[in-house]
Amino acid sequence: MTGSAAARERRSAPVPPGLPDELFARGAVPMTKREVRALTMAIAELRPAHRVLDIGAGTGSLTVEAALLCPKGAVTALERDGDALQLVAENVMGFGLTNVDVVEGVAPADFAGFEPHSFDRVLVGGSGGDLEDILDRLPGLLAPGGRVVCNTACLETTAAVAAALRCAPWEGFTCSQISVARGVPAGRLLRFEALNPVWLTSARLEDA
Amino acid sequence: MTGSAAARERRSAPVPPGLPDELFARGAVPMTKREVRALTMAIAELRPAHRVLDIGAGTGSLTVEAALLCPKGAVTALERDGDALQLVAENVMGFGLTNVDVVEGVAPADFAGFEPHSFDRVLVGGSGGDLEDILDRLPGLLAPGGRVVCNTACLETTAAVAAALRCAPWEGFTCSQISVARGVPAGRLLRFEALNPVWLTSARLEDA
Amino acid sequence: MTGSAAARERRSAPVPPGLPDELFARGAVPMTKREVRALTMAIAELRPAHRVLDIGAGTGSLTVEAALLCPKGAVTALERDGDALQLVAENVMGFGLTNVDVVEGVAPADFAGFEPHSFDRVLVGGSGGDLEDILDRLPGLLAPGGRVVCNTACLETTAAVAAALRCAPWEGFTCSQISVARGVPAGRLLRFEALNPVWLTSARLEDA
Amino acid sequence: MTGSAAARERRSAPVPPGLPDELFARGAVPMTKREVRALTMAIAELRPAHRVLDIGAGTGSLTVEAALLCPKGAVTALERDGDALQLVAENVMGFGLTNVDVVEGVAPADFAGFEPHSFDRVLVGGSGGDLEDILDRLPGLLAPGGRVVCNTACLETTAAVAAALRCAPWEGFTCSQISVARGVPAGRLLRFEALNPVWLTSARLEDA
Repeated sequence: MTGSAAARERRSAPVPPGLPDELFARGAVPMTKREVRALTMAIAELRPAHRVLDIGAGTGSLTVEAALLCPKGAVTALERDGDALQLVAENVMGFGLTNVDVVEGVAPADFAGFEPHSFDRVLVGGSGGDLEDILDRLPGLLAPGGRVVCNTACLETTAAVAAALRCAPWEGFTCSQISVARGVPAGRLLRFEALNPVWLTSARLEDA
Repeated sequence: MTGSAAARERRSAPVPPGLPDELFARGAVPMTKREVRALTMAIAELRPAHRVLDIGAGTGSLTVEAALLCPKGAVTALERDGDALQLVAENVMGFGLTNVDVVEGVAPADFAGFEPHSFDRVLVGGSGGDLEDILDRLPGLLAPGGRVVCNTACLETTAAVAAALRCAPWEGFTCSQISVARGVPAGRLLRFEALNPVWLTSARLEDA
Repeated sequence: MTGSAAARERRSAPVPPGLPDELFARGAVPMTKREVRALTMAIAELRPAHRVLDIGAGTGSLTVEAALLCPKGAVTALERDGDALQLVAENVMGFGLTNVDVVEGVAPADFAGFEPHSFDRVLVGGSGGDLEDILDRLPGLLAPGGRVVCNTACLETTAAVAAALRCAPWEGFTCSQISVARGVPAGRLLRFEALNPVWLTSARLEDA
Repeated sequence: MTGSAAARERRSAPVPPGLPDELFARGAVPMTKREVRALTMAIAELRPAHRVLDIGAGTGSLTVEAALLCPKGAVTALERDGDALQLVAENVMGFGLTNVDVVEGVAPADFAGFEPHSFDRVLVGGSGGDLEDILDRLPGLLAPGGRVVCNTACLETTAAVAAALRCAPWEGFTCSQISVARGVPAGRLLRFEALNPVWLTSARLEDA
């Protein structure tokens, strides 16, 4: 099934996120794995009308999952890398999505182009050096009660996120490490290939 | 937010599965954790009109997640234990679900009460002794192209499931081990509490 | 430090096992990782005069660790593959070990060449198809109170080992899954590369 | 087998570390698990004549393992808690060890009582708030080429250790996360209980 066939089947329908990896074009850009996408969406607690910002969109796999879950809302995919931007556009088109805005830019510098408090959810991936600055600026972007979910693969970025999201104006902090090992048939046996561990950290902006 | 408030908000809306654990009544019955529920739904690839059978429903947490994702379909929760049946009913009511059928019974003995090929998806939890018999009988319950997802916590049941689902009439076998460690604040530090690992195994029944 | 420098330093000294991976020649043969070697030796509870059989010796990394811990004993490395046999010999020589016997052969067929009850410890690696036969024959090779430790990477072999070692004449069954993620510096950050999970299963032969 | 029987058997013999947990008295003090002790000793690369400092000795389980591996050397166990000090003494006596010095004190304040550069190895456990100060002071305690191994269970302490040990005067930095799940028989099945993940971080002090 190609991306656009998948799109036809899924458009406007409740879809459990965590789509199979092979439905996405990914080129040489590292992609958030199926299991991590499913959990990111769960922890984000998306609703149909949500406006979502995906910072460091990469291949756009989280953008696509969020856009499918928010048919009455919209997703803004922010990404600095040209090759990645191409992939985001390709994946958005492949799934027939019309509620995604792909923006070339850098966080947090280009936050200035967004309306204050205009997002219900923010997803933060990647491990760019400006993570702490990004988190500092998020309360200005999120609507009251809005929620952020960060995916991190490094110790220091996870510690920085965990420190930032345990203080006011954040509430309801959670952080989980996810380790997945996928079974790979080896003749009649099944061996396991471990994916690298990922941390998912989230919090909710306190209501005004 | 209570179960019924959650229900009002969520009814008829696309909801990412993996609801917070505390939204469910659970008593003394072990409950499938949020992360595992999210991944189970992802791997089940549910669609709105699907008819789902949840074998060994336990607290009904997977039943609830599936019923929310299949508003035009229905979920049958099969469970033998009286206390668990009560919890399933309580959780189904708490979420205001009207598309769930709770059935007291034992698998596979009580499969006789179901129409042949009447389910699009089957979820198998628990580790009752009859897992191999259950899997043997599933092709008779599933519609062509239907899909089974098994959650197992034991080595032997996982091996039995993995063996069964790699043979015809099954296709598209997958098996992943999921290990989650949840961050627990300890003063200004964050330590991690490991949940016990779980295996998710799935396959699709070949088309007729 | 080369293997032989390491050997000079370590010969006849108590050495904690779990030597760095880079001290071993390994060619294209998969090698038991440092962490797993350390735990294998711990669970084997080796003593200086023990006679050890290493079945499926591979690169000989477990053979070398055991031989260093048993200076008054001896290790027999059984291996069928010619390239691996070369590596075992190279590693044994590199560490200056004189208490290792390298035997070309297949388990359990070539057990016939060993004296009954002549080993205090047996280490079983690899996942050859004859694992159940090997375990069936071990009580004939081990001295009373002797101990076996199996390293397995597949679901089915682990289940087979776990089933075999929980029955008489075996006692003191243990089984642990070990998952290691190694930190890899990425600039000022530390990301983690997961090694594939391994199961270590052990039991003790009951005293006569 | 009691601690002192174990002691008689093991004294002055090469012993693989990673002794069974049940050989230690532990009271209510959290104890480093067998698997983590084995790996700590491996990474510490202890030699028979080493002088070892165990900071935050807890039950003394690492102290005992190190003392068994360093029969020509000595171990200093530094611990602030009175109950824990009792346990260290009990375990040291139970294993018949005569090369252990138990010191009541706090790190790094009480480092002043130690000779400069008098330790070949330092083991750091626990997650007291002074970890960064402790690491700052270690180059003054360690002999050139000496090695430190830190066991941490928290994100922040691990990040602090990892940052400190990647800079001069430290070399040969390693950091591994260890996740162990122990098999627990449940009738004829084997389920797995996860231990909380632990990070082992190490480095070597550059030679003068």
